[in-house]
Amino acid sequence: MSEESQNEENEQLHKQFQRVITLLNKYKLLQGFVNMQHDATKALNESSIQKENLDELQRLVDSLHPADIADLLESLPLEDRLMVWRLVSPEYDGEVLLEASDAVRETLITDMGSQELVAAAGQLDADEIADLAPDLPQNIIEDVFRALPIEEREQLREAMSYPEDAVGALMDFDVITVREDVRLEVVLRYLRRLEELPDHTDKLFVVDRYEHLKGVLLINQILVSDPEIRVDEVMVKEMIALRPDDKAQDAADAFERYDLVSASIIDRDKKLLGRVTVNTVIDFIRDKAENEVLNLAGLQEEEDLFAPVLRSVKNRWIWLAINLVTAFVASRVIGLFEDSIEKLVALAALMPIIAGIGGNSGNQTITMIVRALALDQIKTGSAWKLMSKEIGVSIVNGLLWGAVVGLFTFAIYHNIELGLVMMLAMLLNLLLAALLGVLIPLTLRKLGRDPALGSSVMITAVTDSGGFFIFLSLATLFLL
Amino acid sequence: MSEESQNEENEQLHKQFQRVITLLNKYKLLQGFVNMQHDATKALNESSIQKENLDELQRLVDSLHPADIADLLESLPLEDRLMVWRLVSPEYDGEVLLEASDAVRETLITDMGSQELVAAAGQLDADEIADLAPDLPQNIIEDVFRALPIEEREQLREAMSYPEDAVGALMDFDVITVREDVRLEVVLRYLRRLEELPDHTDKLFVVDRYEHLKGVLLINQILVSDPEIRVDEVMVKEMIALRPDDKAQDAADAFERYDLVSASIIDRDKKLLGRVTVNTVIDFIRDKAENEVLNLAGLQEEEDLFAPVLRSVKNRWIWLAINLVTAFVASRVIGLFEDSIEKLVALAALMPIIAGIGGNSGNQTITMIVRALALDQIKTGSAWKLMSKEIGVSIVNGLLWGAVVGLFTFAIYHNIELGLVMMLAMLLNLLLAALLGVLIPLTLRKLGRDPALGSSVMITAVTDSGGFFIFLSLATLFLL
Repeated sequence: MSEESQNEENEQLHKQFQRVITLLNKYKLLQGFVNMQHDATKALNESSIQKENLDELQRLVDSLHPADIADLLESLPLEDRLMVWRLVSPEYDGEVLLEASDAVRETLITDMGSQELVAAAGQLDADEIADLAPDLPQNIIEDVFRALPIEEREQLREAMSYPEDAVGALMDFDVITVREDVRLEVVLRYLRRLEELPDHTDKLFVVDRYEHLKGVLLINQILVSDPEIRVDEVMVKEMIALRPDDKAQDAADAFERYDLVSASIIDRDKKLLGRVTVNTVIDFIRDKAENEVLNLAGLQEEEDLFAPVLRSVKNRWIWLAINLVTAFVASRVIGLFEDSIEKLVALAALMPIIAGIGGNSGNQTITMIVRALALDQIKTGSAWKLMSKEIGVSIVNGLLWGAVVGLFTFAIYHNIELGLVMMLAMLLNLLLAALLGVLIPLTLRKLGRDPALGSSVMITAVTDSGGFFIFLSLATLFLL
Repeated sequence: MSEESQNEENEQLHKQFQRVITLLNKYKLLQGFVNMQHDATKALNESSIQKENLDELQRLVDSLHPADIADLLESLPLEDRLMVWRLVSPEYDGEVLLEASDAVRETLITDMGSQELVAAAGQLDADEIADLAPDLPQNIIEDVFRALPIEEREQLREAMSYPEDAVGALMDFDVITVREDVRLEVVLRYLRRLEELPDHTDKLFVVDRYEHLKGVLLINQILVSDPEIRVDEVMVKEMIALRPDDKAQDAADAFERYDLVSASIIDRDKKLLGRVTVNTVIDFIRDKAENEVLNLAGLQEEEDLFAPVLRSVKNRWIWLAINLVTAFVASRVIGLFEDSIEKLVALAALMPIIAGIGGNSGNQTITMIVRALALDQIKTGSAWKLMSKEIGVSIVNGLLWGAVVGLFTFAIYHNIELGLVMMLAMLLNLLLAALLGVLIPLTLRKLGRDPALGSSVMITAVTDSGGFFIFLSLATLFLL
């Protein structure tokens, strides 16, 4: 049993990581920087002091779980990362690659020879190789493929045939099947002959001779049942039967909703193809949540913290370009009113307030609607209710914050009319934000596009340009 | 076995939901609106047509899984929601409450009588009651408490004693323990006497007579082992031993990293207190990811889609107020340069471009850093490396986008100096964004605060006011 609580364990892991870094630094000082970058492992034998350090480093790395090694590699700058990577025992190579983030995995693969890569892939199951495949050079994939037994080749081909967001991409081929007409006693004897069961085996799949799924036999049911009874007396209907081309998100929802550990995947004829397990689902949920946050900030993908500058620029440019276009539009809207601003320069100082708060408010509405759409909570007929609620909120907010900005304006410029125009502009821009905050995601959805992508940029563009237009034209109308 | 694939199942669920809504509408038309809102169930018996509809509705609701009922309730406006809620079979009340979102749960609880609430809570395990407790009136909790057997009272008291973000709050008391000196044969006989095993039992916990955890016995290990061997010959060291006051996030990380289905919770003396199961961890991960997205948009908590207007206003006001303050500051910065703007009014139209792109770029940097901090990827010494990388990115972006906005400016205003000032201002504001995009989260972390909260508002405030200041003072210096 572990002696430490999770916190202490985390601390120990952290200390180990720090120790690795200290050792790396010591080693670098001894080696000279350039030397190390070029050929760390060769330079290694030159001095016994270095050897000692490296031995300790090696021991430390060997003591880590592959998932922890991947973590360590992600937190190291490129040169240190590759140095530690070369120390990782080859038998862990495959698993570490699997656990590393896409960006970091790429840097590790670039550092490996063809033979090493083929060997690393060879340690993995077909479905795991399929996860790595997009990052491997074509010739390596072919070598890996040829090295596999026939059955696994078939599985690899199948696993690679599904898009990343399909259930098929989460498929695990490692299933145990039994027949419905045998006694549990026989099942128990069969299991005992296996040396171990596949991870996350909470149920066996009951199939007929054509591998059609008839039901599932829960492991826990086997344990509490009389060994004399037959499989078909205790097997249950599989609650969820996924198809490989279902959306992975649907599988994740089902796992969350029905508290599953594994679920079967079948084809149109109900033939059992494989299963999905909860650990894969957790990884999927995490990746998805992370991508959502990254996309909200305009990062296309998870970035290697220590990526070269130009690579980071590439990861970020589209968002900046799109926002620049919307900023140009807003700028031209202001340009229309240059005469008004020249006459009453306070307008220039006040207009960003209207645009900014409109953007904030619109983003609140849109986030709620996008989330409700993702959870499928907006049914026919309730869209109108939602719209009227959001309009109600924007009227209350408009009057409230409109009054605040009106008073602010009056306090600074001692101009009542200007204050009233501010208040009215705030109210109208918040109304606009509420209206489009509901309409934009609903429309995107209707057009079959993902409402989570781009909604936020669009609402900000509308409330910026719209806010400037509303405020400046009201001011032109009433004040000049 | 299920006849449908997950997609078809989803579709069927969707159709069922639609059917519920159609029936509700039919019923409403028959009843008259007011009548229904006041006393739906009483009015019910008045006509046989209505009765038929309601019977069908009842059957539909009865056929749904509690998690699906919760979903349905969340997607209905308040009056329909309560009507369906009253049709839910009392034996499901507890589970539906547990599955519903906080905001919707509140509306359901408000609709229930004391006795109903006590009965609903009585169907749940102690750890589940603890999850509901924050939403229950004090007197109900006391009644529930008194109705529990002594052992469960103790568990409830314990479960309620941990903060929401601690492992203790995820604790499940339903564990099976065995002794290390018995043969597997005996364990198997013991299990067979239980009618069923607790959900997510993938391991039994091996304890001594003082309930100190000695190891775990994997269910799958029992199945493949010779029944004659003793527990201590096949039990393994528990990989993760959580403490109830560890952070729940640490538990989630461990489940993701080591692919766990359940993990033990022990106290300082290694006494077994309970366990955490993967379904609870999935709920935790989902909730956390969702809160992150909501907080990014300035929503304090998950909002009932059909919440009353004032309630929504309350959920959103803080964010708007904070942003208003930063907008006031930015407005005063512009106010400093009113003379310059009066002389060259193009400045008013151009300044939002500099501020806007600075904000976008700063948010990209901050999102990356916050994420890296959450994953504990930033070690001592690498902060400088990160900073210099971000500065590199901002210089490239500054030159690139600076040139674009410079050309845009020249194209519109035919003024080379103005274009050059735009370019320089863009470069400087992106540098500022990069610098503070790294420094703000690192500083918040150093102060012991959560860098995910408030970073985004702060960087936007800096790039707004800073952008206006940089651009307008450069323009005043070089152009006027």
